[in-house]
Amino acid sequence: MSTTAPRSTASQEDHAPEDRAHEDRAPEDRLWTVEEHLEDILSTVRPLEPIELQLLDAQGCVLVEDVTVPVSLPPFDNSSMDGYAVRVADVTGASEQYPAVLDVVGDVAAGQEPGLRVGPGQAARIMTGAPLPPGAETVVPVEWTDGGLGAGPATGMRARSQAPEGASGQVRVFRPAEAGAHVRRAGSDMKAGDRALTAGTVLGPAQLSLLASVGRATARVRPRPRVVVLSTGSELVPPGEPLKPGQIHDSNSFALTAAARDAGAIAYRVGAVADDAETLRTSVDDQLVRADLLVTSGGVSVGAYDVVKEALSSPAPVGPVTGDDGRDENGADGDGGSSSGDGEGAVAAGVDFRRVAMQPGKPQGFGLIGPDHTPVLTLPGNPVSSFVSFEIFVRPVIRALMGLPEDRLHRPRARAVLTADQALASPPGRRQFLRGRAEDGRVTPVGGPGSHLIGALAQANALIVVPEDVTSVEPGTDVEVVLLG
Amino acid sequence: MSTTAPRSTASQEDHAPEDRAHEDRAPEDRLWTVEEHLEDILSTVRPLEPIELQLLDAQGCVLVEDVTVPVSLPPFDNSSMDGYAVRVADVTGASEQYPAVLDVVGDVAAGQEPGLRVGPGQAARIMTGAPLPPGAETVVPVEWTDGGLGAGPATGMRARSQAPEGASGQVRVFRPAEAGAHVRRAGSDMKAGDRALTAGTVLGPAQLSLLASVGRATARVRPRPRVVVLSTGSELVPPGEPLKPGQIHDSNSFALTAAARDAGAIAYRVGAVADDAETLRTSVDDQLVRADLLVTSGGVSVGAYDVVKEALSSPAPVGPVTGDDGRDENGADGDGGSSSGDGEGAVAAGVDFRRVAMQPGKPQGFGLIGPDHTPVLTLPGNPVSSFVSFEIFVRPVIRALMGLPEDRLHRPRARAVLTADQALASPPGRRQFLRGRAEDGRVTPVGGPGSHLIGALAQANALIVVPEDVTSVEPGTDVEVVLLG
Repeated sequence: MSTTAPRSTASQEDHAPEDRAHEDRAPEDRLWTVEEHLEDILSTVRPLEPIELQLLDAQGCVLVEDVTVPVSLPPFDNSSMDGYAVRVADVTGASEQYPAVLDVVGDVAAGQEPGLRVGPGQAARIMTGAPLPPGAETVVPVEWTDGGLGAGPATGMRARSQAPEGASGQVRVFRPAEAGAHVRRAGSDMKAGDRALTAGTVLGPAQLSLLASVGRATARVRPRPRVVVLSTGSELVPPGEPLKPGQIHDSNSFALTAAARDAGAIAYRVGAVADDAETLRTSVDDQLVRADLLVTSGGVSVGAYDVVKEALSSPAPVGPVTGDDGRDENGADGDGGSSSGDGEGAVAAGVDFRRVAMQPGKPQGFGLIGPDHTPVLTLPGNPVSSFVSFEIFVRPVIRALMGLPEDRLHRPRARAVLTADQALASPPGRRQFLRGRAEDGRVTPVGGPGSHLIGALAQANALIVVPEDVTSVEPGTDVEVVLLG
Repeated sequence: MSTTAPRSTASQEDHAPEDRAHEDRAPEDRLWTVEEHLEDILSTVRPLEPIELQLLDAQGCVLVEDVTVPVSLPPFDNSSMDGYAVRVADVTGASEQYPAVLDVVGDVAAGQEPGLRVGPGQAARIMTGAPLPPGAETVVPVEWTDGGLGAGPATGMRARSQAPEGASGQVRVFRPAEAGAHVRRAGSDMKAGDRALTAGTVLGPAQLSLLASVGRATARVRPRPRVVVLSTGSELVPPGEPLKPGQIHDSNSFALTAAARDAGAIAYRVGAVADDAETLRTSVDDQLVRADLLVTSGGVSVGAYDVVKEALSSPAPVGPVTGDDGRDENGADGDGGSSSGDGEGAVAAGVDFRRVAMQPGKPQGFGLIGPDHTPVLTLPGNPVSSFVSFEIFVRPVIRALMGLPEDRLHRPRARAVLTADQALASPPGRRQFLRGRAEDGRVTPVGGPGSHLIGALAQANALIVVPEDVTSVEPGTDVEVVLLG
């Protein structure tokens, strides 16, 4: 993980209140750009190892192998219509006035090896998908015949189980047919040796259909990442339970779990953990076994109770709690320093906590922890901050773990004309992501910039992007929007 | 279900091979337009009854109630920063040169009811989200202070567990703050009595977040429809098993199950059932208990082995098989007639089989069966036909069952310029849905019109729509496309 990226030029212009106090921060306190933080994460995270999955379990996953057609499709010449398999010469010149009258020698149903041969003057009743019997050269649809009923053109065949006599007797054919008419030739869909699908294909319904057609019951794909979502905060109470003074309901763990699923993950909601470093370490230690990615919210800013920062930036290994006051045992200095992804053996913590030049979402963290070097993204705790951070950083990570290509990692973006009563203010040196409703090429902000405004967030379908060097956006301006889909 | 819609004008022009033979069909053999068939289905199907679901189980579902905010959010004035809660007068005029020096009377952490009061000359160390203590009027961020360390501006607080002394002593404040600065007022997000969400809202991550915030652990929504998918055909062998002569692999049951999930359903793949009416009836009877919608493929055309037509158009009740040859016992005339949704008591079949003026996908069926009048869509068996039929008819039904509004039932459509080597031919009187790849306002056909071309289907991301009255489309023409997403 890079820790040597140049100091963002944006930070030179950064006069947001909490940064005005002084400019001489330590290097680890530099302001990262959105791109630097994202690039650091994406250059560290590797796609998950492929596994062989049953077709329907592989839906939405990325194929990692080229699939070759083993046997031509269709494997044999077969009828594309319900009708009669005949010889071309026998129906040449046939008309309603002068029908060709042929002896029906039996049925050829789908799934059967034809047990008959069509000779001169003969016809076999044939069903869609049934193999063309030897001797036959073409198929006349049942609607071009009397269906063996001795009257005018038929509208269909009577069910074999109700009218077995339809497989014998005579049929009158009212129209000629060319050789190969209504016949699907062997290999006309795909030929043995053709490449059916290439590695990198995302398996949707049509691709699964193709795999099944060529006989594949399983596919080798990168699995959906298992994402464990954990919110932190002693003020958090699960919804459905009453609030005491000073408490609020935990909403981030629901939002992030749902968002992780939307991005393609299998997501596990752990819920809220209190602001106690050892409790958090124990929870993380417990959860790592089922996590390809860990996402936390809260506890990453500059406060004295910022538990995620305290628990995960410590280089001390996280083990089982060995006493009532495990904190002191693992203690030392939990501040400042960080170790990057060196957690061999026991669960070692190595999260870099950073300030990113964005609003909301300034405090961010990323690292690899535990024996499997599981990636962790620590998001800020304000509901809107964690939501926006998910969209900008976590969603691409989930999709990178799935093995999706660069152009499918991110939400689509578009341009829209800003509709607003007044100019939008944006802090200098920060990329602002405002909530908006985009429709028909226009976007309207909903709610203000406050990162606690969940009510407005629920009305939004887009994020309005205000660049770092822009501090005011007039109504009518063409702006970039992230479409939340 | 309407059976009196006027005969499609398109059918007057229908000269496709299988219809040319005669024009004097019985009324039940009339050609339905795509809209007539779809309208008949959608006017019959009702959204599922709402149920109360846990928030994360309700993801993607439609809310059926208005949700009102019970308690204002935030419920109390709280700090938006880590810093110090102070009285305005005590920091007025403060600067780095002439800092205000205040006595730290303790910590206010998130989740706590403040056990202290801020008097003149005092400050309480306060964390983001913690309630503003009595006496305090504003919050100064820690970066505007020395953090109690007696030096210059701080970059943050040391963790409470490592440095408990931070909650006492003195703090020097370097900047003034206005009343209410860095304070989120009670009710500034939503006020008690506000409507948080309205009935009809689709619950995504942000809406689930909002519900959790207002204390709701569950939501009253229409559940995801349970869709049972069943393919038919004696020629079908599961992928992974070897093919005997005349056999092919079942692919439709995979494609349709995956497509049903993509549309929002919980889908169950039953797999392929042989062309035997009693076997099919027994399978359907077994499956109905878990089906809000039954989708079959194959067996709906004019052949003598078209098992779906035989089994489900019969008015005879479907019961357990009572003998080795149950077919004859339930026999009588399985042909022609149909009963519409009158299946009281035992599982009675009532599917209308129809010809729809489209290619592929002409033979279609729709009805209500069983004691719960479960909707059934019977799709044709060719892989491309069943896939296209799903997109045009089944997907909107699934979404109507979910209670989604009219404008969210269907795939999005767009206009695109046709890129092709030669003109596309389309049968008169049929709406043709050709497979294509759409990109950057252009669409290129992949594969031909053959409904067995799975290889090409897997390359497509759009359907090119050729209207009923168009028989040839020149390259460069502006065409309508259905975007498969």
